[in-house]
Amino acid sequence: MTVPDPVSAAAVMSIPDFIIHWQGHRALTRRVIETFPEDQLFSFSLGGMRPFGVQATEIHLVDAMTVTALRSGEWPEPDWTTGPGTKADLLAAWDAVSADLAEHGPHTDSAFFTRVHALPWGEMPGWVAAIYAVDNEIHHRAQGYVYLRALGTEPPAFYER
Amino acid sequence: MTVPDPVSAAAVMSIPDFIIHWQGHRALTRRVIETFPEDQLFSFSLGGMRPFGVQATEIHLVDAMTVTALRSGEWPEPDWTTGPGTKADLLAAWDAVSADLAEHGPHTDSAFFTRVHALPWGEMPGWVAAIYAVDNEIHHRAQGYVYLRALGTEPPAFYER
Repeated sequence: MTVPDPVSAAAVMSIPDFIIHWQGHRALTRRVIETFPEDQLFSFSLGGMRPFGVQATEIHLVDAMTVTALRSGEWPEPDWTTGPGTKADLLAAWDAVSADLAEHGPHTDSAFFTRVHALPWGEMPGWVAAIYAVDNEIHHRAQGYVYLRALGTEPPAFYER
Repeated sequence: MTVPDPVSAAAVMSIPDFIIHWQGHRALTRRVIETFPEDQLFSFSLGGMRPFGVQATEIHLVDAMTVTALRSGEWPEPDWTTGPGTKADLLAAWDAVSADLAEHGPHTDSAFFTRVHALPWGEMPGWVAAIYAVDNEIHHRAQGYVYLRALGTEPPAFYER
């Protein structure tokens, strides 16, 4: 008797893979925040863009909201005007979300990724919403890389997680 | 009788999801290349970094290699010094890889993502290698966003795919 390939074999990433993947990116973003000169984090800018500290705060709020959603299925919109105003506070808030993700992420309901969620910016499947948080983090962090280079500071290696 | 949740339910992304996800990013990167002023694409730089045309060529070569691997399981290292030298040639090469991905991506062997592959930069599971291509694309494209802003050009919206 031939058993057809299980659908699981067609998966690109399992939930544990996704958590490892995201935590690797979170660790890298943390190093970028840490590397940033304190006196430039919330002030230095290129091309009229937001300072990296403001972009990193947005990453933090999106990530925190997404970790909450993995646990609860709810996407409570944060107050985008709030957030840590110093490097130390940003790193402490960062570590709290990483700990939450480590604790709750692996227990995410397996239906989370296929069902449709209502986010502040629209309805989408869970996998799109979850991977968007990572993509948004990579995107804004990379802008921090350019700021660091322009400030004469070597950023952490992109391929190290 | 209770049937345990199939492992497939623990998948974050299926192969078709991944292809949609990556093609969405490829379409966005194409718009960034298209938006870039022709006379700045291979010359404008910030912080001593490579011009965006050179970074986009690297994205192209990594993506092309990864699409080849999805089809064949082989990772032939490209000659990193080669590549299209004009915007038109870069866009044509881009479209050829997108067409390849559309044709062959959905037929990727389901074992590809879990087995270990030998890449020019080391051994890793297929899912890590595949998602790295997308992450590398987001990372370098975001640096192009800063260049565009510094040139006074509005980049395409990040959230549109």
